[in-house]
Amino acid sequence: MSYKTIEKREDGQVVLIDQRKLPAEETYKTCETWEDVADSIRTMVVRGAPAIGVTAAYGVALAARTLSRDGASGDSFRKHMDEVLAAMSTTRPTAVNLFWALERMRRAMAAMTSDEPSDMARKLDEVATSIHEDDARRCAAMGNHGAELIPRDARVLTHCNTGALATGGIGTALGVIRTAAEAGKNVQVWADETRPWLQGSRLTTWECMKLGIPVRLIADSVAADLMRRGEVDVVILGADRIAANGDVANKIGTYSVAVNAAHHGIPFYVAAPVSTIDPDIATGTDIPIEQRDPEEVTRIGDEHIAPEGVDAFNPAFDVTPARLIKGIVTEVGVARPPYTESLARQLG
Amino acid sequence: MSYKTIEKREDGQVVLIDQRKLPAEETYKTCETWEDVADSIRTMVVRGAPAIGVTAAYGVALAARTLSRDGASGDSFRKHMDEVLAAMSTTRPTAVNLFWALERMRRAMAAMTSDEPSDMARKLDEVATSIHEDDARRCAAMGNHGAELIPRDARVLTHCNTGALATGGIGTALGVIRTAAEAGKNVQVWADETRPWLQGSRLTTWECMKLGIPVRLIADSVAADLMRRGEVDVVILGADRIAANGDVANKIGTYSVAVNAAHHGIPFYVAAPVSTIDPDIATGTDIPIEQRDPEEVTRIGDEHIAPEGVDAFNPAFDVTPARLIKGIVTEVGVARPPYTESLARQLG
Repeated sequence: MSYKTIEKREDGQVVLIDQRKLPAEETYKTCETWEDVADSIRTMVVRGAPAIGVTAAYGVALAARTLSRDGASGDSFRKHMDEVLAAMSTTRPTAVNLFWALERMRRAMAAMTSDEPSDMARKLDEVATSIHEDDARRCAAMGNHGAELIPRDARVLTHCNTGALATGGIGTALGVIRTAAEAGKNVQVWADETRPWLQGSRLTTWECMKLGIPVRLIADSVAADLMRRGEVDVVILGADRIAANGDVANKIGTYSVAVNAAHHGIPFYVAAPVSTIDPDIATGTDIPIEQRDPEEVTRIGDEHIAPEGVDAFNPAFDVTPARLIKGIVTEVGVARPPYTESLARQLG
Repeated sequence: MSYKTIEKREDGQVVLIDQRKLPAEETYKTCETWEDVADSIRTMVVRGAPAIGVTAAYGVALAARTLSRDGASGDSFRKHMDEVLAAMSTTRPTAVNLFWALERMRRAMAAMTSDEPSDMARKLDEVATSIHEDDARRCAAMGNHGAELIPRDARVLTHCNTGALATGGIGTALGVIRTAAEAGKNVQVWADETRPWLQGSRLTTWECMKLGIPVRLIADSVAADLMRRGEVDVVILGADRIAANGDVANKIGTYSVAVNAAHHGIPFYVAAPVSTIDPDIATGTDIPIEQRDPEEVTRIGDEHIAPEGVDAFNPAFDVTPARLIKGIVTEVGVARPPYTESLARQLG
């Protein structure tokens, strides 16, 4: 594959593939300032929980480099960086990987002995790069663990996009599917289009086609009917935040897929790095859910698809209770119920 | 409301509101020939099972009038009319109301004693008009029976469009909702957008707004999450064909709503005229399901929302088994399980 989801340039600027324009156009946005980076996360130039974490870390590193270049003093540097961290954390509310990456950056700064901005900027740059490299390694490990769960001949249903476009590596759930396919399994993907943002139709099909993995696109509401007709062997998808008890917040529509999978006795798996687990959140009820602009539902591109002035309700995520989930694949292995114990072990 | 879904003009031509262009434009298509009518059904200028039946009947009457005007002999008239009936029956495969209306027209022709084309044309015109008027009366009766099922304060979820745009009267499921609202009940509608054709976002919201019924639009996959959060009191939607055992073929996505309603203990009702019941079909398995153009999934207006060349699977309907349905509202009353008995009584 020739595209790069997130690239940090030598000068610290961050280049992102503009996911709002895929698949029609493969264009890249160069973020020259940390504010550009924050804005790109907020407006979904980049999306996908792990990719957001990596991008935010590079944004923080870019802010540090700029402050250092502009001759900030040690005190002023730290003060400004606190503001950058605070602002960056308001870009998206649900994916915990964002907060996890920012916390790693904050701790790295707190641990520094030097008060020289150029030293601190260099160090933050290293940490951001290692968050990116870590994420790629984690994706690879998730792929290996998760591929074991995919039957030799498998029609796999997935929701939203969880591939290279959503992470710093090969992906979470789509990375699992890819690893299974590369291991010679006969995999066919059913891609939910994933309204309203259409990550499935725009991004997942695009990635599968680039990878040569057979994929068929469906409207989200077709999934249940496919299950009834025995055309789905396994479901695997990603997560934006996992509560300590195994409840999973993920792209809106995930819960409907989970209820339908349970109704039809189809195994339902989640794949996400350990950084997605939030031990401070006991259950899914406490996960904050982002509400997005109703225009995402009432308009597609320039096309108005609902009457002017209509009221639309547009939550970006929903919560799937742990009891509907057969296993959670992380870079450590496959956690099984009861998740309170198995996830704690993975975090430990 | 100022719009008319289907209107037969004095000269027999059929005027249809072009539902493909709503809500952006309220334009009307005049069908000057029966072929125009058939094409309008096929391309979904008009849709909704009862509306298709009414339109097809007017199309047959228009063919008869044209043949008579052009001086066809009695034999040639009957032969041509058989061809028209056959052609009209291939326009859409799933909604049984189409075949029911055509069968009424065929029987009326068979029962005629006169062999004079102008007499036969006049008679067919009367039958088509009475199919339309019957449908309006049936809608009104369904509204009254069904309104009893709607609580005094009700958040009602519906799928696709089942209002005045889908029928020759006030609608089936949306007619029930409207009747409940007009009876003073505090009704709020959750409208599934209903991908891929977006009947919910384009038509149901439009009708509700015209009627002054509070409506909120959601992506289809949001319904399950709303149910989990206790924000749906009752589900009611339409049907395109009902098997003798109560299995219901309806717009794709209906089955997913039914599974989710059952999972959350929410009553799930279907509203459809008796003409939707097909006593010749034992179970839902035998109902033919229309497969439509993948472009309906990969494109919205001029906007391509999936990579070029992607494979999409686009069934127009799915089948919901009778066991998930709490009641079927017809113009006769509310049929309850076991449906094999209750539907047979309604037909009888």
